[in-house]
Amino acid sequence: MVQPLHIGMIGYGFMGRAHSNAYRKVNNFFDLKYRPVLKAACARDRDKVKAFADTWGYESIETDWRKLVDRKDIDAVDICVPNNLHCEIAMAAAAAGKMILCEKPLAMNAGEGLRMCQAVEQAKVANTVWYNYRRVPAVTLAKKLVDEGRLGRIFHYRANFLQDWTISADLPQGGTALWRLDVAAAGSGVSGDLLAHCIDTAMWLNGPIVSLSAMTETFIKERKHNLTGKVEKVGIDDACALMCRFANGSLGLFESTRYARGHKALYTFEINGEKASIKWDLHDLHRLEYFDHRDEGQTRGWRSIHVTDGEHPYMSRWWVPGLQIGYEHSFVHHVADFLDSLAKGVPCQPDFRNALATQQVLDAILESAKKGTWTEVAR
Amino acid sequence: MVQPLHIGMIGYGFMGRAHSNAYRKVNNFFDLKYRPVLKAACARDRDKVKAFADTWGYESIETDWRKLVDRKDIDAVDICVPNNLHCEIAMAAAAAGKMILCEKPLAMNAGEGLRMCQAVEQAKVANTVWYNYRRVPAVTLAKKLVDEGRLGRIFHYRANFLQDWTISADLPQGGTALWRLDVAAAGSGVSGDLLAHCIDTAMWLNGPIVSLSAMTETFIKERKHNLTGKVEKVGIDDACALMCRFANGSLGLFESTRYARGHKALYTFEINGEKASIKWDLHDLHRLEYFDHRDEGQTRGWRSIHVTDGEHPYMSRWWVPGLQIGYEHSFVHHVADFLDSLAKGVPCQPDFRNALATQQVLDAILESAKKGTWTEVAR
Amino acid sequence: MVQPLHIGMIGYGFMGRAHSNAYRKVNNFFDLKYRPVLKAACARDRDKVKAFADTWGYESIETDWRKLVDRKDIDAVDICVPNNLHCEIAMAAAAAGKMILCEKPLAMNAGEGLRMCQAVEQAKVANTVWYNYRRVPAVTLAKKLVDEGRLGRIFHYRANFLQDWTISADLPQGGTALWRLDVAAAGSGVSGDLLAHCIDTAMWLNGPIVSLSAMTETFIKERKHNLTGKVEKVGIDDACALMCRFANGSLGLFESTRYARGHKALYTFEINGEKASIKWDLHDLHRLEYFDHRDEGQTRGWRSIHVTDGEHPYMSRWWVPGLQIGYEHSFVHHVADFLDSLAKGVPCQPDFRNALATQQVLDAILESAKKGTWTEVAR
Amino acid sequence: MVQPLHIGMIGYGFMGRAHSNAYRKVNNFFDLKYRPVLKAACARDRDKVKAFADTWGYESIETDWRKLVDRKDIDAVDICVPNNLHCEIAMAAAAAGKMILCEKPLAMNAGEGLRMCQAVEQAKVANTVWYNYRRVPAVTLAKKLVDEGRLGRIFHYRANFLQDWTISADLPQGGTALWRLDVAAAGSGVSGDLLAHCIDTAMWLNGPIVSLSAMTETFIKERKHNLTGKVEKVGIDDACALMCRFANGSLGLFESTRYARGHKALYTFEINGEKASIKWDLHDLHRLEYFDHRDEGQTRGWRSIHVTDGEHPYMSRWWVPGLQIGYEHSFVHHVADFLDSLAKGVPCQPDFRNALATQQVLDAILESAKKGTWTEVAR
Repeated sequence: MVQPLHIGMIGYGFMGRAHSNAYRKVNNFFDLKYRPVLKAACARDRDKVKAFADTWGYESIETDWRKLVDRKDIDAVDICVPNNLHCEIAMAAAAAGKMILCEKPLAMNAGEGLRMCQAVEQAKVANTVWYNYRRVPAVTLAKKLVDEGRLGRIFHYRANFLQDWTISADLPQGGTALWRLDVAAAGSGVSGDLLAHCIDTAMWLNGPIVSLSAMTETFIKERKHNLTGKVEKVGIDDACALMCRFANGSLGLFESTRYARGHKALYTFEINGEKASIKWDLHDLHRLEYFDHRDEGQTRGWRSIHVTDGEHPYMSRWWVPGLQIGYEHSFVHHVADFLDSLAKGVPCQPDFRNALATQQVLDAILESAKKGTWTEVAR
Repeated sequence: MVQPLHIGMIGYGFMGRAHSNAYRKVNNFFDLKYRPVLKAACARDRDKVKAFADTWGYESIETDWRKLVDRKDIDAVDICVPNNLHCEIAMAAAAAGKMILCEKPLAMNAGEGLRMCQAVEQAKVANTVWYNYRRVPAVTLAKKLVDEGRLGRIFHYRANFLQDWTISADLPQGGTALWRLDVAAAGSGVSGDLLAHCIDTAMWLNGPIVSLSAMTETFIKERKHNLTGKVEKVGIDDACALMCRFANGSLGLFESTRYARGHKALYTFEINGEKASIKWDLHDLHRLEYFDHRDEGQTRGWRSIHVTDGEHPYMSRWWVPGLQIGYEHSFVHHVADFLDSLAKGVPCQPDFRNALATQQVLDAILESAKKGTWTEVAR
Repeated sequence: MVQPLHIGMIGYGFMGRAHSNAYRKVNNFFDLKYRPVLKAACARDRDKVKAFADTWGYESIETDWRKLVDRKDIDAVDICVPNNLHCEIAMAAAAAGKMILCEKPLAMNAGEGLRMCQAVEQAKVANTVWYNYRRVPAVTLAKKLVDEGRLGRIFHYRANFLQDWTISADLPQGGTALWRLDVAAAGSGVSGDLLAHCIDTAMWLNGPIVSLSAMTETFIKERKHNLTGKVEKVGIDDACALMCRFANGSLGLFESTRYARGHKALYTFEINGEKASIKWDLHDLHRLEYFDHRDEGQTRGWRSIHVTDGEHPYMSRWWVPGLQIGYEHSFVHHVADFLDSLAKGVPCQPDFRNALATQQVLDAILESAKKGTWTEVAR
Repeated sequence: MVQPLHIGMIGYGFMGRAHSNAYRKVNNFFDLKYRPVLKAACARDRDKVKAFADTWGYESIETDWRKLVDRKDIDAVDICVPNNLHCEIAMAAAAAGKMILCEKPLAMNAGEGLRMCQAVEQAKVANTVWYNYRRVPAVTLAKKLVDEGRLGRIFHYRANFLQDWTISADLPQGGTALWRLDVAAAGSGVSGDLLAHCIDTAMWLNGPIVSLSAMTETFIKERKHNLTGKVEKVGIDDACALMCRFANGSLGLFESTRYARGHKALYTFEINGEKASIKWDLHDLHRLEYFDHRDEGQTRGWRSIHVTDGEHPYMSRWWVPGLQIGYEHSFVHHVADFLDSLAKGVPCQPDFRNALATQQVLDAILESAKKGTWTEVAR
């Protein structure tokens, strides 16, 4: 029999919607031993959380996350609030014995992240962090090819996450919709928001990062703050780039910005190995580019793999070859894997401990950028 | 208050899944006056329809479509069965006063289609045909650009629908999964299955087709039949191409096949106008290519529009710019528009009458291919 | 020792330049037994042909092509004049024992073409027709792959040649620069100018065309004529499309127009075989797209072959991998092959006889379009 | 009247061929006051330089560059030899009053480069450095768009030059063909060979680089040396990446390697400005990607400009719209501009002084990579 898993959702923003959609859809497409039940949604604004609950079918609402965490009828807490609240909520949820699905980045810094790890490990509760891009089928396929050893020795890894939505100096910072520009709520700018994804994927595919040299820039120095109504200094990084060395001897190059005119959410990565290379681009997320040097010379070329066949990761669950899925499906896959991991009694990666490594890199990035030196990544 | 709309689904195949998903999701993303309620699913095989109903949350099942059609608690019947059953079911559903959402093509031929039109018009029941590609946001945007007159006088329209899944001679015909290869169930091959989409979009964007010259081919002449177990003659067209003239004076060129190695579901169309041109490709359905001759000469080029912004059709309902949706969303949009049309008391296009025009072109195609002559399209 | 081959060039237009450039460059890049010597250029306008000769280094000029043909110091005559002069000049050149390199299409019609074939065959003079696209390295590679049998049974061949330079109704017809719009000089419009290339490549790659059904259209019915100064009826086809059947059982679809806004010279072709498919596009002529169904499923995709490696046809003669050549190089390759064929005493394809087959298809196209019927291709 | 310019070529390798081809073609396509005359070719190996001279039509040969430099019948010396000889030859040529066209990079280091600048400036001889990519029409168009101020404030510049030809550990270093792997002859690896191009273009388009942080790696530590026959330590950088800050406040990111499997000569750059962005890729050098935020929202997208129109830089000299030119034409354009600058009595950019700035960045790169610190660029 399929068991219910009672979800308590904290937050109702972009991620709250993406996760709710995933919970609702997952059993229509995947055979699973658990079925998410949308038990309660929580946010401070009663009207907004009520509307959100009605839209998505949450059975009840709360306006204090502590109450939600304490409810007996909740099995798992989903943390979809700004980064500065992750640690406190996760600590409480773990103490209450709840499973935790936490939005990325794990925490404001590695210190917080470490405490969160210790809390869930001590409480022995299932935990995962929503680095959803691992479960885009093309990215999962990349992981499979890497794990099969097809690339040989790796020489290079490079990744970008380019956006252009904060170029206007008129855009304010802070508040519900724009907390990502407020350093107090977000902890950092593009490094924690965008590079975090790049780093998570990179270490998943290519192993640990040992040392790095980073630079950051804040192009618009002051913006009106929605919470105070005043023009205030902008504390986040608008752009961040870094060079690094991986433990496997390969070189890495990363860049993220919200000032790359023409790019909405251009997350790309490329791995160059001795025998083969791989490229991916979020703007066409259903494709994987693959070059295999072992192919015959005269017909060798980059293969554009339309990752929609039944033999591609996750794709047998959806439609027919040639018909693409989209962004939201990465979350459905994450939920499917989380529920499957529960059934199997194994961790669902990335768990908190795994995501802590990304947090350590993020700390090193900000430190290196501040000091202008190469920095070792703590481990 | 949101009103329930009680759906009775007939069929549980690929389209049954796509529609069910749409019914379940639509109110999470669109503000509507109606909410689909999955009341009953119907198919001859009790076990299979039971499993289908459980997966998607249908409240009950039927194994005789006549019973479903007669149920008082059903508002709308969704016809997702092979083409040879469309007419009979639709006639009965109309007689029972049910709304009808019918899979494409409307019927086996224009004669059947006409009777269906007359039935729904006489019964005054809401009706629509699932030519879903109109509601891929990039295609809807194309329609908007055409309607705004941006292309000027149209010279050319060309479209392809290329697949490669029936190349193997070992593939049988007929039965549940392969009825599309059985002429008795499907009526025709790629013309009714694939070209029907191309023709529907073409006439929506570019107006009526006046005359045409077509050719068809059946590359594999005999296949084992799943229903008889014997090798039987293949009656469908494996490939079909046509030249035509539109009422607006432009020339059309269409091709469809299931023997184009390397293409899974490559539906492409292009319109060339005096002032601008448009291209689209289902394999990257979230993009629209647009060339505007009025752009300054030195920087003029085909624009690759990533149709994921809030100002693009339907896209304000989904995620954030840069994050693509997929194939299934075209059905969600169709349901949203159908429900909206109910609220407004207007037809939801394409309705049966509109889809009849495509059926008339399909008839002309088969006739022209058989006779080897140019054929006028009945209207 | 390298032998001189004395060239007499008739015409000084676009093709006169392209051929002259090829003659001048070929020995810098290819090891050959012959070296073209630019002996004389000929055209009616003395000033213009003098300027042309000075620019390209022709040793002398003529203003009467009959004189050029009769000169003892000319080995080979290059015919770069409008189509209506090909036959007469070629007949005279053959009678004078000259080798002939004739621009495409071979003639105004198959009747003329046949006489030209008989003339060169009787005179036993080397002859070739400048269907230069065969010698774009990517196209030559396509031929090699087809000849190796990699595609298996062929199902489909499709080709387009799309331009947009005659959309303006203000463009006149006739005279030096615009003879291609004058039916008296060109014989036809896009069919002889553009489709001729598509047909030549198609039959080279896929064998004879047996029968076809074509349509033509003249969108702008009248244009000012440069020779008379009056507005006159336009006699050429502005657009032409055809369906056909090849002798090998495959289906063909061809389209050409000068009214496809956004396309400057978009010659594309695609072949779909049982085992593999090939695509090419003149706008990126250094690439060949190749799909091989025998590739492993999970990494199968269209390969974009950057045809710039030493092992690709002709490319060992040029630069280093990754550095592309352009349009003009196809002519250099043609000259290289022509000179090589002289050394070997074999025909250089396409010779007149080979090009006659294309002419027969062109005749069938115009006949079919006029009659509105399927037409057998004469052979 | 057209004046002869007597060229003395030193070297006969890849660049010797590319330049010779340019000298021979330039007057066929450009109206110029000077015409290069291939007077003498020089190299130590008499047989090889004789063969080279015969192929390209050089009137004479020399085996000692000092003799060539001293010849009265030579106007301009073209330096196409390994980097370690640039300075000495250029100093002597300047002293002999010869114009100098020097291959890039200018010198082994900025110290040498400075002496070369002083020499040509004192001798008042015309001088230029073959950073040929500036004169690919798409790149020249990019410069034009930048100069017109279309991009607004610049935020980001990124460039890559990726190759894969030295991945095999069996490849030796040193000698005629492989001097680029020999640090004694080349001075550096990918930084001087490939990044030099990226830096030159970057500073041309985006102004001076102020400071940088670089890393280098030598993946294959030892290779057989062709000159000694022994396995020796590899002294060059196999890969090099850097972050930098431009004087205009924008951030730069550069990477170059010969270990990027699948890339033959992938030189790409991208500029992100407040109002518009530009991208270019050497593998499709005839295209420029352009995004203009001022375009209307619903049809905004990256424009793929096929840079083959008469109004595009240099293109009116070549064929017709849609027909691409290739790599070699960038050299023809450089010669055309050099000859034109002679006629006008102005410098031909990049001259030695301009190229010195790139050398200073290269020095800073190697220093930064060695020290592991941010480094100011000398100016």
